[in-house]
Amino acid sequence: MLTDSGRVEVQEKENTQPVTLLDVAREAGVSPSTVSRILNGTAKVSPDKRKAVETAIATMKFEPNQLAQGLKSGRSMTIGIVVQDIASPFFDETLHGVDDGLKDTGYASVIVSGHWNAAEEAARIKLLLARKVDGIILLSGRIEDKTVLEFSKHRPIVATGRALHSATAIGFKLDNEYGAFLATRHLIELGHRRIAFVSGPVNNSDAMERLAGYRRALQESGIEYEEELVAEGNFHEASGLMAIHHLIETQRQFTAVFAANDLTAYGVRLGLYRKGIRVPEDISLIGFDDLPSSTYTTPPLTTIHQPLYDMGLLATRTLLALISGDEIVNQLPPLELIARETTRRLR
Amino acid sequence: MLTDSGRVEVQEKENTQPVTLLDVAREAGVSPSTVSRILNGTAKVSPDKRKAVETAIATMKFEPNQLAQGLKSGRSMTIGIVVQDIASPFFDETLHGVDDGLKDTGYASVIVSGHWNAAEEAARIKLLLARKVDGIILLSGRIEDKTVLEFSKHRPIVATGRALHSATAIGFKLDNEYGAFLATRHLIELGHRRIAFVSGPVNNSDAMERLAGYRRALQESGIEYEEELVAEGNFHEASGLMAIHHLIETQRQFTAVFAANDLTAYGVRLGLYRKGIRVPEDISLIGFDDLPSSTYTTPPLTTIHQPLYDMGLLATRTLLALISGDEIVNQLPPLELIARETTRRLR
Repeated sequence: MLTDSGRVEVQEKENTQPVTLLDVAREAGVSPSTVSRILNGTAKVSPDKRKAVETAIATMKFEPNQLAQGLKSGRSMTIGIVVQDIASPFFDETLHGVDDGLKDTGYASVIVSGHWNAAEEAARIKLLLARKVDGIILLSGRIEDKTVLEFSKHRPIVATGRALHSATAIGFKLDNEYGAFLATRHLIELGHRRIAFVSGPVNNSDAMERLAGYRRALQESGIEYEEELVAEGNFHEASGLMAIHHLIETQRQFTAVFAANDLTAYGVRLGLYRKGIRVPEDISLIGFDDLPSSTYTTPPLTTIHQPLYDMGLLATRTLLALISGDEIVNQLPPLELIARETTRRLR
Repeated sequence: MLTDSGRVEVQEKENTQPVTLLDVAREAGVSPSTVSRILNGTAKVSPDKRKAVETAIATMKFEPNQLAQGLKSGRSMTIGIVVQDIASPFFDETLHGVDDGLKDTGYASVIVSGHWNAAEEAARIKLLLARKVDGIILLSGRIEDKTVLEFSKHRPIVATGRALHSATAIGFKLDNEYGAFLATRHLIELGHRRIAFVSGPVNNSDAMERLAGYRRALQESGIEYEEELVAEGNFHEASGLMAIHHLIETQRQFTAVFAANDLTAYGVRLGLYRKGIRVPEDISLIGFDDLPSSTYTTPPLTTIHQPLYDMGLLATRTLLALISGDEIVNQLPPLELIARETTRRLR
């Protein structure tokens, strides 16, 4: 099955008899199940066999079997994923869940970025549709729900950070207000009453929901909301550093800080360190997100766990169910407090 | 220009007169340059205009102008990117550089993952070729150089972590040995002579190159290499934590630790914190990578800066030059020491 020149030929005509997994196995001199296990990454295989299969795939007109089957059924066996910032740890966790959700399904994913720009997002979704993806996962973004619904008439879309419930578009939205309420209540339960808040940007809906949760927890405990204890950040580390410097310089009295996300908390932590203020001995600190790196800060960060991984996994399973017409039974786990070592009882 | 049903229609026939940027501008009631600026994300535009353009793109048969031109010239104006682990901060930095390298070029990128599995990598590259990408950027990976060269006969490939120099495949490889030499020499210059090393996995070539650099620096300063001061890690935080516990428990004497990458250093840092050992007062610590988060550890981490962002940028520019037949003049900046606050002179 080698082509004459030994070159890689890319076969696109759908009516050509496809090379099967069996042909690859024969060419590589291994069993079909070995090829299957290598493709799925589910088992350890000797380097020699792996290399033989790799070479056979590279030199033959092989498309993984599911893809060939997909072509017959009119499916491309490809899912499009739209992120906003490929270099953000926030998207990493969700993408990790998407990745695991596609494992052993035969689906490949292609990822594009909308760069938090509505028009670019729309153009990228059109690109994916033109490339015949079977469905799209849209992670956050700036295009309007109306536009998402419009696009979903062509291929099903599952979106995060939106509440959508149509036959072709489903959204998963985390409860930011409740998470911020949990974080603030945790500090209050530890005896803190003067709690500073480093918010996200005021034009961001997630950020405003978190501010609302902070205010509700204060109110329920009869603590007056003080605007002077709130400093605006932008969800990045440097803004946390600046905000805490500002709060310290203006001589606000507080015994605890709630940062609107973990990255902001890292900046706050460094700012306190620079001033010789100990965490948690002098000031308690809590974040929001539970990024993987928050387990390894010194001390490890108390934070609100957002089920980002689960959200990616669920979004993927929901999309596959939409594509195949299966029933959708998925529900997102709630946000929860992860008490590590940056918060302690007020003395 | 709205279709009858108001639905999104995906136009694929290449001989259809494409909707131009001008048509979109007319439909949205804005100037063509506004549409262009929105698509490029290069300027601030009022939310109203942005929304009008977004709606026009969503409802018209519009493909960005460069894409339409590309179709005429036989190009798809799409670049394929193969990563190994989409959720790793290591790939994030490089992808950030790739992203910036494509900005304003009219090219869109699609990202797929090989999951550190040679056969899956080969299958994903074939998928990209079948989708008619104009070129491929391969970030690390397990397939053999020979296979990369084979694929590159179909479309140009720029790879990182490999030394390739063909007409259709070019590789960029960072000098791990030199970086590790720099790190170790920095500690020696600060007066340290008993320097522990938490290595990467022994079956990883980057890891072994870093071990070689550590040994060379010791040797050039007449310090004997002691196997007992080297603990194997796996480039992840938990392995750094375990390695430092092991080194402390076996009562090795050392005044400094060189961790084979920043994530490992984070684990070492936490392990020292748990034992009440101060950094840098009691032990100096240096990492390798210079991840963005290393600026915000407490204290900020001294490390070796790998030009990951630049590598992504250069790989992209080189690929675009290969595609268009332009001259390639790019050179990667060298690795360098970033002295922050986790290392100090031995007292």
